[in-house]
Amino acid sequence: MRNTARWAATLALTATAVCGPLTGAALAAPATPDSLHAPSALVLAVAYGDDATLAAPARAVTLSCAPTASGSHPDARSACAELRGAQGDFDALRAREDVLCTKQYAPVVITVDGVWQGRRVSYERTFANECVKGSYGTSLFAF
Amino acid sequence: MRNTARWAATLALTATAVCGPLTGAALAAPATPDSLHAPSALVLAVAYGDDATLAAPARAVTLSCAPTASGSHPDARSACAELRGAQGDFDALRAREDVLCTKQYAPVVITVDGVWQGRRVSYERTFANECVKGSYGTSLFAF
Repeated sequence: MRNTARWAATLALTATAVCGPLTGAALAAPATPDSLHAPSALVLAVAYGDDATLAAPARAVTLSCAPTASGSHPDARSACAELRGAQGDFDALRAREDVLCTKQYAPVVITVDGVWQGRRVSYERTFANECVKGSYGTSLFAF
Repeated sequence: MRNTARWAATLALTATAVCGPLTGAALAAPATPDSLHAPSALVLAVAYGDDATLAAPARAVTLSCAPTASGSHPDARSACAELRGAQGDFDALRAREDVLCTKQYAPVVITVDGVWQGRRVSYERTFANECVKGSYGTSLFAF
């Protein structure tokens, strides 16, 4: 029994010695996925309709966020910052309160496909009209 | 009057000389979808495994082909040319005969998502190993 206890103590110490510094480093300076160059490459497309499978894309842009912000998106740097701020969750982008839109139904559908920080993305979101689309977030959907 | 006629003749000849070749060139090369700026924006990703839904992408690049070739693809110009040559049909890319590969099974899966000349693309293809992947086409899958 004492031997078991000694082993347990040794294991605990070893675990602390091995994992401790790693944990410390992770806490001190979290390795961001960007710095690890996890691939982040997206295509954002906009189509007029309420279903992406039925509406041909009117515009499409690329957006790379690692190692640096680039792509045919008109403001890649801001779009990447916005997406990082939302931790890659497109649904987390909320409507800005300073934009007033009519309730006219002229649907606009946004799709996002590709890879974000090493994970596959396939996202679709329909807005009631172009104004409502523009009221979500700041730069990501502005293309 | 004779001077005016001479000027008119000179102008007509100049117009023919300047516009003639342009018109000829335009007729010889019909407007391609690229020249109409139909959106073409793709994300190409590679993962190690035989199923893209199970394998996390190891690398991902963007490729825009309109209005000009760009993106994080290492050779966007050649990749766009190759894809145009295949008329956007990824399955049309054939294995080059000058490449010999072993039959080792270490599967590599390529995915292509986004928009090609205004149409949505969602493509997946698994190769038996990296060498086999490299033997298909020339530059499109070389990233």
